[in-house]
Amino acid sequence: MSRLILALDVLEREKAIDIAKKTAPYLHAIKVGWPLVMNAGMEIVREISQFSRVICDFKVADIPNTTRLIVRSAKKYGASGIIVHSFVGRDSVRAAVEEAGEMDVFVVTEMSHPGALDFMQKHAEEMVKIARDEGARGIIAPATRPERLREIRKIAGELLILSPGVGAQGGKARDAIEAGADYIIVGRSIYNAENPALAAKELTEEIMGLENQ
Amino acid sequence: MSRLILALDVLEREKAIDIAKKTAPYLHAIKVGWPLVMNAGMEIVREISQFSRVICDFKVADIPNTTRLIVRSAKKYGASGIIVHSFVGRDSVRAAVEEAGEMDVFVVTEMSHPGALDFMQKHAEEMVKIARDEGARGIIAPATRPERLREIRKIAGELLILSPGVGAQGGKARDAIEAGADYIIVGRSIYNAENPALAAKELTEEIMGLENQ
Repeated sequence: MSRLILALDVLEREKAIDIAKKTAPYLHAIKVGWPLVMNAGMEIVREISQFSRVICDFKVADIPNTTRLIVRSAKKYGASGIIVHSFVGRDSVRAAVEEAGEMDVFVVTEMSHPGALDFMQKHAEEMVKIARDEGARGIIAPATRPERLREIRKIAGELLILSPGVGAQGGKARDAIEAGADYIIVGRSIYNAENPALAAKELTEEIMGLENQ
Repeated sequence: MSRLILALDVLEREKAIDIAKKTAPYLHAIKVGWPLVMNAGMEIVREISQFSRVICDFKVADIPNTTRLIVRSAKKYGASGIIVHSFVGRDSVRAAVEEAGEMDVFVVTEMSHPGALDFMQKHAEEMVKIARDEGARGIIAPATRPERLREIRKIAGELLILSPGVGAQGGKARDAIEAGADYIIVGRSIYNAENPALAAKELTEEIMGLENQ
């Protein structure tokens, strides 16, 4: 069972579908964000969901009512998961989890860019606790700071940890898995590869190898 | 010149276009969010922009690169403004302003729901300063807490203040304007009115009356 998630950060519908189809056999899920949806419409979520789990990386950061509407729409189009922020507060995370039903909610607790140190990192532990208390399925925490990942793992309880930042951003799959990540999110190293399917296959096998050590 | 912004929080394309056309003469701009775009596609932004300024209330809360892609797309579809979060950090706000060019960037500094007290309100002043330093056009701060609005006005400098929360959420246009808001954002009281155009006209005249006092 693959522990690899593809961040499908391309803009063109055809390219997205092509890469998604080729790589899906080697993936746990495909993560789709706003730029692709703005360009290709929410139908892209439905199309990809025919052959892969789709996690909508919408980083929802709104009041509870709007959060519900966004979650409901993602679900309607066949997403298996959605990513929300908890910085906007406990009630918005609760609204997302309630509305999601069977769909998974993942909560952002840390991010990999420099600006994440301005406000977010100060509150990462509190945000993990909100995710845990409100029944989210997991959290998003970057592989680029494995020492932070290790701290977060300690308080995350049953929450899954999904780690972006492996590959082009400098994070190592090995470090993230060892620090407690459950799934590795990889983008450019797969979708920009000459052979995306092969890149996904090799990465998945590498992660499986780490598990068996 | 109207200082009223309609929060067009409906989901159906036809209803959105109908209300937008009828109310546009009495508005400064129309604010459109993700739920409508998910349902009707980004084309809705282009359609409404034919007869009104459109502010994309996307509450962008992502890394700088993804922020750029979202801002670029909103601009391509004819938006006159976009709303972004600053809790994700200064670099993301900077990326939005750089990418926006002539388009206005508005930064969320406070929100009206209870969860906004969990983390955001603690950092409101710092987020206003980021908006100011990075050249945003304005900030979003709710009319439901006029005492906070007054504090924010003091440090906001040249930034415009757009205040949601008037009407169904309990905020008063008078309180918000007196506390320093430049524009009032109203949703349900207009789009759920029996005559949305009349509701918009009366509200705009009420706000103009306040200015002249």
